[in-house]
Amino acid sequence: MASLEEQLELIQSGTSEIVPLADLKKKLAEGRPLRIKLGVDPTAPDLHLGHAVPLRKLRQFQDLGHVVVLIIGDFTARIGDPSGRNTTRPALTAEQIEENAATYIAQANKILNPDLTELRRNSEWLGKMDFADVIKLTANFTVARILERDDFAKRIAEQKPISLHELLYPAAQAMDSVAIEADVELGGTDQLFNLLAGRELMEKRGMAPQVCLTLPLLEGLDGVQKMSKSYGNYIGLTDGADDMFGKAMSIPDELMIKYFTLATPLAPAEIGQIEAGLTDGSRHPNAVKRRLAREIVALYHDAAAAEAAEAAFDLVFKQHEIPEDIPEATVAEVATPGEDGSIYLPALMLACGLASSASEARRLIDGGGVKLDGKPLLKGAYQCQPAALKAAVLQVGKRRFIRLT
Amino acid sequence: MASLEEQLELIQSGTSEIVPLADLKKKLAEGRPLRIKLGVDPTAPDLHLGHAVPLRKLRQFQDLGHVVVLIIGDFTARIGDPSGRNTTRPALTAEQIEENAATYIAQANKILNPDLTELRRNSEWLGKMDFADVIKLTANFTVARILERDDFAKRIAEQKPISLHELLYPAAQAMDSVAIEADVELGGTDQLFNLLAGRELMEKRGMAPQVCLTLPLLEGLDGVQKMSKSYGNYIGLTDGADDMFGKAMSIPDELMIKYFTLATPLAPAEIGQIEAGLTDGSRHPNAVKRRLAREIVALYHDAAAAEAAEAAFDLVFKQHEIPEDIPEATVAEVATPGEDGSIYLPALMLACGLASSASEARRLIDGGGVKLDGKPLLKGAYQCQPAALKAAVLQVGKRRFIRLT
Repeated sequence: MASLEEQLELIQSGTSEIVPLADLKKKLAEGRPLRIKLGVDPTAPDLHLGHAVPLRKLRQFQDLGHVVVLIIGDFTARIGDPSGRNTTRPALTAEQIEENAATYIAQANKILNPDLTELRRNSEWLGKMDFADVIKLTANFTVARILERDDFAKRIAEQKPISLHELLYPAAQAMDSVAIEADVELGGTDQLFNLLAGRELMEKRGMAPQVCLTLPLLEGLDGVQKMSKSYGNYIGLTDGADDMFGKAMSIPDELMIKYFTLATPLAPAEIGQIEAGLTDGSRHPNAVKRRLAREIVALYHDAAAAEAAEAAFDLVFKQHEIPEDIPEATVAEVATPGEDGSIYLPALMLACGLASSASEARRLIDGGGVKLDGKPLLKGAYQCQPAALKAAVLQVGKRRFIRLT
Repeated sequence: MASLEEQLELIQSGTSEIVPLADLKKKLAEGRPLRIKLGVDPTAPDLHLGHAVPLRKLRQFQDLGHVVVLIIGDFTARIGDPSGRNTTRPALTAEQIEENAATYIAQANKILNPDLTELRRNSEWLGKMDFADVIKLTANFTVARILERDDFAKRIAEQKPISLHELLYPAAQAMDSVAIEADVELGGTDQLFNLLAGRELMEKRGMAPQVCLTLPLLEGLDGVQKMSKSYGNYIGLTDGADDMFGKAMSIPDELMIKYFTLATPLAPAEIGQIEAGLTDGSRHPNAVKRRLAREIVALYHDAAAAEAAEAAFDLVFKQHEIPEDIPEATVAEVATPGEDGSIYLPALMLACGLASSASEARRLIDGGGVKLDGKPLLKGAYQCQPAALKAAVLQVGKRRFIRLT
């Protein structure tokens, strides 16, 4: 087993906060396998690298010999938002939940060690509670303390209504920690309040309180918004190897180290060396990004698939004689999507300096002189979905290129 | 059956608010027996005239042919206040609750018509609710709306903590209205919010919403504080006839009409005549107060007991040659209780002008020249419990009297 210091170094890497760190040290010093909790909302079937951040941290705990307790939040998913105000919380049938849970677990098992994963559904204990139990549970919380939570405080400031039932969810999540006797609970930085509520409830019940460990939100490929399906800036855990490699190559340089830390299995020491190399110029950013892309593909496929994906990536550029060092343009900055969400290419070409006017751009497209990733655009193909432009190279004639990001 | 106008006149007499009055008219016009709800907390075993105010109103509804649904709040009484902050809400055993409920019902049946009373315990429906049901129920309320309630708003202003479970009680009370399909719910003026919450929940459930009827709080015998056991200013429903008559005679003149309205079965028209008589001087206040005292005793005992109590009351005064028209003094104004709660009589006598000094007062007492309700005080009996002074006459020698209130 790793030493206390080694364990701490790995566990702390990439975290935002560990509250309180002293308790974590004490628990690790006990030398027993700790119970590491992650609560999962079974409403989103497709996972991406953002979802994988806490899963990677769980895997690190498993590699250190600890036990992961993955809680499927089937209880609240079945209820949804009865007030009807929250469209992201629809009521799901038991079948939908089981289907989502199965998909989730299949994807999570690309990262986790199933032998050290305990899978629980919180309907096991929350479904058995009656009104009297709920009153006893909620008596442990004060209204003021719950309304301090960021999202509630914001809605109060904006005079947006908060339904009474929403205040019950932090209490329910805290109850999960009691039920599974969590030693550590993981969450995003925006979850700190809920994690602390679990800690407080355990203390009031006379249990050893859990340690709260928060992880930063991972920015998506645009480098700005958090990774999310709705922003289209994500790498899905089930993406094909070539697709995954190409998307990874569009990660902004300044986020590479964060991605290494939060999205790959590289040890903190090795990531430190890479960072130092980038800083002193001994490593080239393009080479580092290729390494990052290979690591990500190898994690969700395998090393051979990663090599093949890199070769395929190179082939596109070599085959079409696309030089590696070409100017870049961010689609979101140079083009505005139409009402249907599509991009009008002649306007984009004009904005990028690939044509002197929209009508010239249209003539170039119609004449077969404009290629997207090496393939000529068809006559009249002026509209293009933003997804098709992601990390693509737009080429006019033989020598003019723009890499879109 | 009484006409709509007659019903309205009786129902409206003595009420604070009827929200909305139009709905009450509509419901009465349907000509069916309405279901009139009163929720009762089975924690206080002894009822007094203050508790009787809503019971009297229920009786009026019964006299008009409507049905009373008396809800024993056994569900929440069994839980108490799990946060331990509220000492007036201890957890009660099922046996204690049944015992209190039996006592309550026995006392309430001095006023109500048992044949038109439906007795329910809210554990019937609240006890069957699980966590999911609670979430669905609370989704009907917004936090802001509940925190507007007077007592919550006050605690927020004073930065006193509110436990999360306390927010569930208005929802539970509203659920009671749904469960018994209330047409009208009664409560004190401080209950209006809770009554309205029931109305709103019924509307959201697609039911004909209940009408909220509030009644004023009855001031106690001191004419200042609301009637309450803890202020010692009450007439208990189980008080003996003589005691009840004597206490009623100490009701302040300016509250007589309110007591007639809220605490006797006299019709509004007759109370109107009494009030007019007092105003034009055709009725003497003392005669009116005797009538009030007789009415109250007759209600909880019978007419014969009322006459006997009046005769006994007169006898005390005649026997001891106490004139009816003697000066009065309010104990709380002329004396300060000591640390043990007792009154030092020499100081009181001095303050009332019955002695020129405390030492003279002590001499008078020791000499047997001071009587309380006709009985001479013993030598050295300087300390007296406030209860013994209530409505008592303090006499020095043959001619100096003070009626204490």
